[in-house]
Amino acid sequence: MRLNHSFLSTFLTLYAALINTNANANANAETTSTSTSTKIIAEEEHEIGYIQSLKLQIPPLESVTSEFQQIEIYESKHYGKVFVLDECLQLTEKDAPHYNEMLAHIPIMEYIIMSMNMKKQKRIGSETQTETRMDMKPLKVLVIGGGDGYVVAELLKHSFVESIDHVELDQGVIDVSSDHFPWAKDLWKNEKVHLHIEDGAKFVQQKANALSESESTSESYGYDIIIQDSSDPFFYEDDGSLTILPSNVLYSDQHFQALFQLLQPNDGILMFQAETYNIPSNLEVIKEWRGTLDNIGFRNARYGTISIPTYPTGQIGFYVANARAADANADTECTTDDKSSDGRTCIGNHSSSLLASEEFDMKTVTKYFEQMIGKTKYYHPKIHRSAFDLPLWVEEYIY
Amino acid sequence: MRLNHSFLSTFLTLYAALINTNANANANAETTSTSTSTKIIAEEEHEIGYIQSLKLQIPPLESVTSEFQQIEIYESKHYGKVFVLDECLQLTEKDAPHYNEMLAHIPIMEYIIMSMNMKKQKRIGSETQTETRMDMKPLKVLVIGGGDGYVVAELLKHSFVESIDHVELDQGVIDVSSDHFPWAKDLWKNEKVHLHIEDGAKFVQQKANALSESESTSESYGYDIIIQDSSDPFFYEDDGSLTILPSNVLYSDQHFQALFQLLQPNDGILMFQAETYNIPSNLEVIKEWRGTLDNIGFRNARYGTISIPTYPTGQIGFYVANARAADANADTECTTDDKSSDGRTCIGNHSSSLLASEEFDMKTVTKYFEQMIGKTKYYHPKIHRSAFDLPLWVEEYIY
Repeated sequence: MRLNHSFLSTFLTLYAALINTNANANANAETTSTSTSTKIIAEEEHEIGYIQSLKLQIPPLESVTSEFQQIEIYESKHYGKVFVLDECLQLTEKDAPHYNEMLAHIPIMEYIIMSMNMKKQKRIGSETQTETRMDMKPLKVLVIGGGDGYVVAELLKHSFVESIDHVELDQGVIDVSSDHFPWAKDLWKNEKVHLHIEDGAKFVQQKANALSESESTSESYGYDIIIQDSSDPFFYEDDGSLTILPSNVLYSDQHFQALFQLLQPNDGILMFQAETYNIPSNLEVIKEWRGTLDNIGFRNARYGTISIPTYPTGQIGFYVANARAADANADTECTTDDKSSDGRTCIGNHSSSLLASEEFDMKTVTKYFEQMIGKTKYYHPKIHRSAFDLPLWVEEYIY
Repeated sequence: MRLNHSFLSTFLTLYAALINTNANANANAETTSTSTSTKIIAEEEHEIGYIQSLKLQIPPLESVTSEFQQIEIYESKHYGKVFVLDECLQLTEKDAPHYNEMLAHIPIMEYIIMSMNMKKQKRIGSETQTETRMDMKPLKVLVIGGGDGYVVAELLKHSFVESIDHVELDQGVIDVSSDHFPWAKDLWKNEKVHLHIEDGAKFVQQKANALSESESTSESYGYDIIIQDSSDPFFYEDDGSLTILPSNVLYSDQHFQALFQLLQPNDGILMFQAETYNIPSNLEVIKEWRGTLDNIGFRNARYGTISIPTYPTGQIGFYVANARAADANADTECTTDDKSSDGRTCIGNHSSSLLASEEFDMKTVTKYFEQMIGKTKYYHPKIHRSAFDLPLWVEEYIY
């Protein structure tokens, strides 16, 4: 999702000139504010010959050069405020719920469904739901990246989230987000949230090392849920060469191994941003990540999909994986009986949300979510279940 | 999905110049074929300030000016052959299955599930599946538009599709598609397919008038399934003005009324292309279409979604609706008992595929589909079920 800057800057300059020419040629309602003009931000996927652009109003509302990057906030006509890092679109107010609600609520809800015996609940009836809610144990969560604060804000809606370690590299991102996004205002002043301005990979590695050295089996060292909301790990230049980006360390075998160590061994859940399947090199690493997670000891690594118009190709994905022992999940694995002659009937058995299981009644889960959280914009239990249903060619490639 | 041509043509010229400059500056593997260059095709959604572009190889493989439009086929590096009408992208070989398999198989599978007592099948066991397959009555299908032939080709994979009336305005589209797309080769020579080079709206109106005049109740006049694979009905110019496109007549109340008349009154199914929800004016008409269908007498009009990278915002939708009597579907409507205090728990009850009902076992349906059709690229019963699970804000707006 990165640009070839030398090329694109020329393109953007020319294009911006055209846009302005066009605006002047058409004397219409849009030009009443003559002091406001527009610029175009573009994201090019060289690998597939795809370019996506968005009109932003200039000048930016904010432009800060931090130790690590240029941080900008723009206003836009349709997408609300747009958050840009080094000329790359990170988030728009309009469609940010698509990505962030899924990253926050899917691991929490998977945890809840796994923890509670919803089947039993269903039999006993709805009267016991409030009690179940009280029974949830307090959760410890780690959020890596996501300095815009959206994921952390969604997590805090769950009353049983007891503490969140939030690791973000750039204090500048925290400051700008606090000033501009409603969900981030006073977010890091919340006593449940512990902000660490650090390199996410180093933070994780140090914690894991400390854990190994102490040889402790105490649960107090473990997280129940880890969410990694990172930028892209790599991109291909126009000449076909691969460029490794800083967040690549968050996708190394060593890092995933450390995350595994930091999760509760029986019911810990890992969630991380996992790119779009529409770009061949991405799809390849999506498959590789599944193998890596499996080798480390994660179980049920499932790739899910989110529709989001301002990300290239309108789609981004995530992985959810359990840090529990293999035999505890044997019932969700493919069995020979499930397979037709070509093995395809098993599709879904190894890639589904727990919500796709017949054990869980959608109506009960939905009522539970609404009682707990109330209003969301994108997430609800039905779309949680559906997120794991991929185009067949993608499903067949990954699994 | 249309362009402001005067503006975009200038942009494209400049952009193409840049692309070529860039290619020359980087002496790499891509420039070995010096006789091939690229051009950019762009689609701008003025309403949301969104532009999407795709690189095509020039010269085009084919360029024909028909009575109605300019028809072109380009080669592309990642998306295979690209089909372009009047500079608007219609289809790429790579992601065409996403859209076309859904348009063909969803109405057929909904019909099958509705017709068969799958629940009974499940109890009796898998041995009886072959018999059930033989029991399907022969289906009469009408396809309006879709001159690329993909939907018709998919329909023919179902052996019980007895006849297809295919109405396409432009013989040029049929000819070019026959020459370039593997699925379209000899397609219209198939004895089950009856090609009508006509205006789709007029064809439907004439059939409906003839039916009214004959006062016949004979089932031989009705279609079991009607699929409308049309281009966009309207778009907004850069200055905010609305431009009505030729296919707008395929979305009028009168046309939908005529389609209703042409469908079998008890089990007929209508499927039509229904735009993306990511553009406000589209979402508004998506909601209006549902009201129109409901007023005419259609039941269970359900908006479904498809991920497709080369369509603007990466998403396009469709409607499926039943032409059956209202009381026959009472069990799928919302009831007071289903609703939580704010009514949201009912979400999905009125918007789901039949496959989301607990009556139908996904494994049985999947086995059935695979026995019948074999290999697809995008469609499978799980994604069929999931297509109706929308982002919550979209679901709440439409229903």
